[in-house]
Amino acid sequence: MEKAGAEAGAGAPEGVRVPSVKLKRHFERGHYDAETRNAILDESLVGHLAVVLDGFPVVVPTTYARVGETLYLHGSSKNRALRAAAGKPACFEVTILDGLVYAASAFNHSMNYRSVVVYATCESVTDETEKSSALSAIVDRFEDGRSTKLRPDTPDELRQTMVIKLPLDHASSKVRSGPPGDDLDDLADGTFVGVVPLQTFAGEQLAAPRSRADAVILPGRLRLG
Amino acid sequence: MEKAGAEAGAGAPEGVRVPSVKLKRHFERGHYDAETRNAILDESLVGHLAVVLDGFPVVVPTTYARVGETLYLHGSSKNRALRAAAGKPACFEVTILDGLVYAASAFNHSMNYRSVVVYATCESVTDETEKSSALSAIVDRFEDGRSTKLRPDTPDELRQTMVIKLPLDHASSKVRSGPPGDDLDDLADGTFVGVVPLQTFAGEQLAAPRSRADAVILPGRLRLG
Repeated sequence: MEKAGAEAGAGAPEGVRVPSVKLKRHFERGHYDAETRNAILDESLVGHLAVVLDGFPVVVPTTYARVGETLYLHGSSKNRALRAAAGKPACFEVTILDGLVYAASAFNHSMNYRSVVVYATCESVTDETEKSSALSAIVDRFEDGRSTKLRPDTPDELRQTMVIKLPLDHASSKVRSGPPGDDLDDLADGTFVGVVPLQTFAGEQLAAPRSRADAVILPGRLRLG
Repeated sequence: MEKAGAEAGAGAPEGVRVPSVKLKRHFERGHYDAETRNAILDESLVGHLAVVLDGFPVVVPTTYARVGETLYLHGSSKNRALRAAAGKPACFEVTILDGLVYAASAFNHSMNYRSVVVYATCESVTDETEKSSALSAIVDRFEDGRSTKLRPDTPDELRQTMVIKLPLDHASSKVRSGPPGDDLDDLADGTFVGVVPLQTFAGEQLAAPRSRADAVILPGRLRLG
């Protein structure tokens, strides 16, 4: 999946260089395999799409779905950043924060995390079948198979919704785990050194008044808190 | 704090227009007060810095600290994106995912979240006192007052660390909360409609072997899971 430093790859406009996905430092944190990448993308529910609008980078937080080697994002057809993204260079980034790393020196504090960065030229999805499949994949992030339980989108809903896709061929993952790396000689009395793991949990489900079921099958790795 | 649509504001290069922070849709989700903004910035531990490198937007996930009306980020002095950010237009974005919103129609699914978007021209912090204060503020995100317990950074550590700052005068917050907005007439049998709240919890603290304390005061709203 990794093609570092390609000139004008990923469908970028001529003269625009796709950034290298190769880590320049902390090489041990870099992963370029699809398995690591997909596990992170399939666990996180929110990613961060960056596009350039009139010279300024603009970041849009959004949910998404991965289908094979393609990421699908959706939003309102009126969303300025999404509209601008079509045909333009973009960066999509996902970070899962796994823990806080408390070191003996301020310098060596860190975080445990798993992140993915994707560089791509966004493409607007206009094929009706692909668009419907993408929207189903996105709603299925909320609950496995949920799209099959709901009525189909109406033509008007589809018109109001824009779907864009990003190929995953310029992507890399970065993972830090484990304890702080520093020398405990720096340790001051009464100072905790180690890791505080973090995890996201689901709270009690708040059913709408006329909801006909009181439980949803939580997606991915989500567990009740 | 909000100055929508300013031309070449926030220290942007001439001809570059700072994006408006005014929401164009879902007006009810937009907040422009410092209190809402600061609460989100002070709770989240990770944000997403976007800068433009050779025509491509690049997103860097990073921790940060807010001091008054200024955000401070830090990283390795060799970090290409951080180095490029100095003097350049940037977008810094923070999202806290509060829940999944299950609607009766796929179209009305949503997420409950609190997000902040900041547009600014990044400035490299070279003043030694300001740089040290910023680094203390960042390590204090891990534990209140932690910087006072640790030895000072060495001159070499300070050389290896770059600090950049972003003013908060072009920022906006976006908040969605509450149940799905759709018509329950769409509801299919056995389909949950409502909200699954999400929260991040801290797990058991993993002390390093020679750590001289077994507890850290968790930052912000973090609670034990």
